[in-house]
Amino acid sequence: MPSYTAPVRDTLFVLNEVLDIQRYAALRGYADATPDVVQAILEGAAKLAEEVLQPLNAVGDRLGCTRHPDGSVTTPPGFKGGFDEYVAGGWIGLSMDPEYGGQGLPHAISAAVEEYVISANMAFAMYPGLTQGAIAAITAVASEEQKRRFIPPMIEGRWMGTMNLTEPHCGTDLGLLRTRAEPQADGSYRITGTKIFISSGDHDLTENIIHLVLAKLPDSPDNVKGISLFIVPKVDVNEDGSLGAANAVSVGSIEEKMGIHGNATCVMNYDGATGYLIGEKDKGLRAMFIMMNAARLLVGMQGLAISEVAYQNALAYARERLQGRALTGPKNAAGKADPIIVHPDVRRMLMDVKAFNEGARALALWGALLVDLADVAATPEDRQEADDLVGLLTPVIKGFFTERGYLNATNAQQCLGGHGYIREWGLEQFVRDARISMIYEGTNGIQALDLVGRKLPMNGGRAYKAFCKLIVAFLNPLAAEPAFAEFFLPLQKALGDLQAATGWLARNGIVNPDNAGAGSMPYLQLMGLVSLGFMWAKIAKLAQEAIAADRDPDGFHATKLATARYYFSHVIVETATQRAKVEAGAAHVMALAAEAF
Amino acid sequence: MPSYTAPVRDTLFVLNEVLDIQRYAALRGYADATPDVVQAILEGAAKLAEEVLQPLNAVGDRLGCTRHPDGSVTTPPGFKGGFDEYVAGGWIGLSMDPEYGGQGLPHAISAAVEEYVISANMAFAMYPGLTQGAIAAITAVASEEQKRRFIPPMIEGRWMGTMNLTEPHCGTDLGLLRTRAEPQADGSYRITGTKIFISSGDHDLTENIIHLVLAKLPDSPDNVKGISLFIVPKVDVNEDGSLGAANAVSVGSIEEKMGIHGNATCVMNYDGATGYLIGEKDKGLRAMFIMMNAARLLVGMQGLAISEVAYQNALAYARERLQGRALTGPKNAAGKADPIIVHPDVRRMLMDVKAFNEGARALALWGALLVDLADVAATPEDRQEADDLVGLLTPVIKGFFTERGYLNATNAQQCLGGHGYIREWGLEQFVRDARISMIYEGTNGIQALDLVGRKLPMNGGRAYKAFCKLIVAFLNPLAAEPAFAEFFLPLQKALGDLQAATGWLARNGIVNPDNAGAGSMPYLQLMGLVSLGFMWAKIAKLAQEAIAADRDPDGFHATKLATARYYFSHVIVETATQRAKVEAGAAHVMALAAEAF
Repeated sequence: MPSYTAPVRDTLFVLNEVLDIQRYAALRGYADATPDVVQAILEGAAKLAEEVLQPLNAVGDRLGCTRHPDGSVTTPPGFKGGFDEYVAGGWIGLSMDPEYGGQGLPHAISAAVEEYVISANMAFAMYPGLTQGAIAAITAVASEEQKRRFIPPMIEGRWMGTMNLTEPHCGTDLGLLRTRAEPQADGSYRITGTKIFISSGDHDLTENIIHLVLAKLPDSPDNVKGISLFIVPKVDVNEDGSLGAANAVSVGSIEEKMGIHGNATCVMNYDGATGYLIGEKDKGLRAMFIMMNAARLLVGMQGLAISEVAYQNALAYARERLQGRALTGPKNAAGKADPIIVHPDVRRMLMDVKAFNEGARALALWGALLVDLADVAATPEDRQEADDLVGLLTPVIKGFFTERGYLNATNAQQCLGGHGYIREWGLEQFVRDARISMIYEGTNGIQALDLVGRKLPMNGGRAYKAFCKLIVAFLNPLAAEPAFAEFFLPLQKALGDLQAATGWLARNGIVNPDNAGAGSMPYLQLMGLVSLGFMWAKIAKLAQEAIAADRDPDGFHATKLATARYYFSHVIVETATQRAKVEAGAAHVMALAAEAF
Repeated sequence: MPSYTAPVRDTLFVLNEVLDIQRYAALRGYADATPDVVQAILEGAAKLAEEVLQPLNAVGDRLGCTRHPDGSVTTPPGFKGGFDEYVAGGWIGLSMDPEYGGQGLPHAISAAVEEYVISANMAFAMYPGLTQGAIAAITAVASEEQKRRFIPPMIEGRWMGTMNLTEPHCGTDLGLLRTRAEPQADGSYRITGTKIFISSGDHDLTENIIHLVLAKLPDSPDNVKGISLFIVPKVDVNEDGSLGAANAVSVGSIEEKMGIHGNATCVMNYDGATGYLIGEKDKGLRAMFIMMNAARLLVGMQGLAISEVAYQNALAYARERLQGRALTGPKNAAGKADPIIVHPDVRRMLMDVKAFNEGARALALWGALLVDLADVAATPEDRQEADDLVGLLTPVIKGFFTERGYLNATNAQQCLGGHGYIREWGLEQFVRDARISMIYEGTNGIQALDLVGRKLPMNGGRAYKAFCKLIVAFLNPLAAEPAFAEFFLPLQKALGDLQAATGWLARNGIVNPDNAGAGSMPYLQLMGLVSLGFMWAKIAKLAQEAIAADRDPDGFHATKLATARYYFSHVIVETATQRAKVEAGAAHVMALAAEAF
């Protein structure tokens, strides 16, 4: 059976040293996030993840969710108890607005907590995760009355939320959707249609579920400009907030899928269900994108979180499994064989995953910090820059983290040989669970298009320029430091590849937009590699300083330095190929007629 | 539900044009493989795969195999009927020795058939696949009496075979194995021990199963030099070939695993079972490696076969699914959206898979041809060269094909978006099934070590030199052809990367063997990319010639040329990164102490 230990020490290193969040102590939210408070929160979250949620992960996968003959849905055994503990710990409202019952702590802290919860039990984590997204959308566009009616019960853990976008014939292209909303005399709407792939669509964890549903009004344009957003509660909610009658919402079926069996992925039928318009008529997509942007960072975190737990279990196996001898002579001469961690190819896989995980943790928490700063930074310029950067990094974190997360889970599984393929060892579940993250909340291809087609050119490339400027500003003072050259040079080269690829896209995407489309995924990978390189360069600098100042009693920083060296010698070298793929253009991608394939 | 159409046209192209097997018409086996016969065989195999075996694939995944309270094992519904048709068609003995009931056709033909059978139903294909391996081992080392007793019933499909290597505490390192063989007065042995991960370990498809079991004799060294190979029938076999008493062989359990549920992966208990030594005492590993080399080519074929069927289903979806508009303006203006095959990133995925599949098909069948030539070529020099080349290419085909096969299945799944994650669409099964191929018959890490540590240096690098010489001999006459430059230059560059990496390994592997180990997997990838590049260059040349001679009425060769262009612009460019990873060496891979991870 797999196990999990939350990487609290590494999270604290990122928050305290890499991001130095105490710099922001004057800002809203950060004032309360003193080092002691942060450590206590992380340790509490670690305990919840390790002791309550992780033990429910395998059983959730094995037994899944059940739709009963009466149409009700139950989660796997133990999930309800686990959720009650989650609620009792106040974890849902950690970074929510105190106005509605939240604790108002920084997203940088709640994102760290989310990593642990997902590592322990991704299918479980999706229930509160989607609720957070629903709260974000309601917060962004609903009326004050609606906020007071719907948000506090969700923060209290009495209700949850879902997102209802996809229909059988449309996912990415929401302009095609068919769900209708008919205005009623009392100002409400009757919602009719079928939604599919609805995560956490129904369950027994809370007394009510607040579905956010995209639908079209009868007089709206039948395209993306005619989509409105509705709250459709599972049980209707009276104006005083008390529960009313059951709504005309039902679960057609639970999808049979590759993984995340502990989460009920539902076909939802709305049969004239009562709904409440939130935000402006026909502006529903805007609200949904607010929700989705938060969700995309969370999905990116799934890539990291699964990669981390898969790594821990592969590492434990590699240290214990005795098989063969080191190429350089026995390392466990007293035993009949050496532990397989002596073998270079096993280490290659472990180092790949480790170097990703620690760099990605820094990048993910930087992203969460930017979400905070976009809201609370001291000056409009700082808020703008933070907003630009998080907009740019969101598709990178979603797309790069989830692809690597899946590949890392696969590599971790590989470390176990045949045992990796067997259920009881748990690695194969990580691979199956990780797989969905590349698909939902916009496939990774959509992330790449968002990056290349929107985020790069937006405002004359302002976000991209800010990103490069940060890296250049970090690198420039280090240009003459020989001891830093092993990190400086590969990052400079990788940044050069990124800049060349960006220039190529700018020039050739105008000539033919297919050039931008064809290069979008390798470009996303390239920017992911550079972003992690930036994190690793910062980490290497901090580690060098700590070691030079004799502040590394347990070798933590020495290990960081060694891992940074691996990243810059074995991982970031991939930028050359990604650049070549961008610059190869669209001609040979698009050459064949559809029927010639 | 997924579907499958065997790529008969492409197989014929490879056999007739790329490999030009009619050149070998004077050789044993090939004399009978006239173009008409080959086409009829492939069409028959296609019919079996498409109409009989593919419809059993999803049900096999869903229902799996069952171990009953009496210890017996049954395969999924329909498998027995499917196997009976497989036997009736004479497919088992296609390339087996006519001396024992086979048809003596070339391996190049049976390998093509295997691709179809695996694409249709990988779990099913493993039953006869392991039987072929068992026959190969018995053929190689058993006495004539043993061959006559055990091989014909396997070729007739009355019995099957298995390989029993792995034990709970050892897989790769067989020197650790504990299964014991005690000599009996009648010349037989009593076999006692537990074997795990035994594919096709028990089933209801045949009246008997011939287990090949590795075990140690009491007086043998307790290491790899003390392993012998035994035939242990499920039901004992009398000297006249008739069935005797049930043997002391039982199935402890069927493993619960990630995929290939239609194949019974068993824990096998041998409790003083009667076994018959085959080959020499203490030389069992040599025989097992003969079996394993054949099996490794077959496992490589699994990578291609799953990639092909996954591709076909992704392509069908991409042609039909309407979603969004082409970046260059509507392509299906009459509809509400364009088919997603218009989107460059969807095409990128499809072209990646297509370019792999067609190049890999050529390489796989070349490998099978080399197996034949190693046996029947006209001169000792030709036989030696073929044997060298197939030895070199076996780990490449196994390791490269299975890794790409898995990634390609993942990419194909990605083309379906959310539907790719849902069971009924079948793509997720392909991913789960493909995953095992990277692990069994020696993990891909073991393949990489075999390539770099054994096959490269063997006989002073003779095989590697022969491989490079073939490519250079192909390229040299084309150096001055401007129309071929777009293929010549990238292949020349990739070959340069391979040669540089080989030189680096030769120099630095001697200094420190960890350098060879650390670079072994990127080196394997690099050689895979060059090998496929060699195939694609040959294909491009043939296509150019056909088009120039007006021999391309249906555009088949024009499509080949376009796909070759994709391979040389978007795929082979990866050699630069793989070379960089080889040349990055072992220092940063091995830097951390095991406890520092």
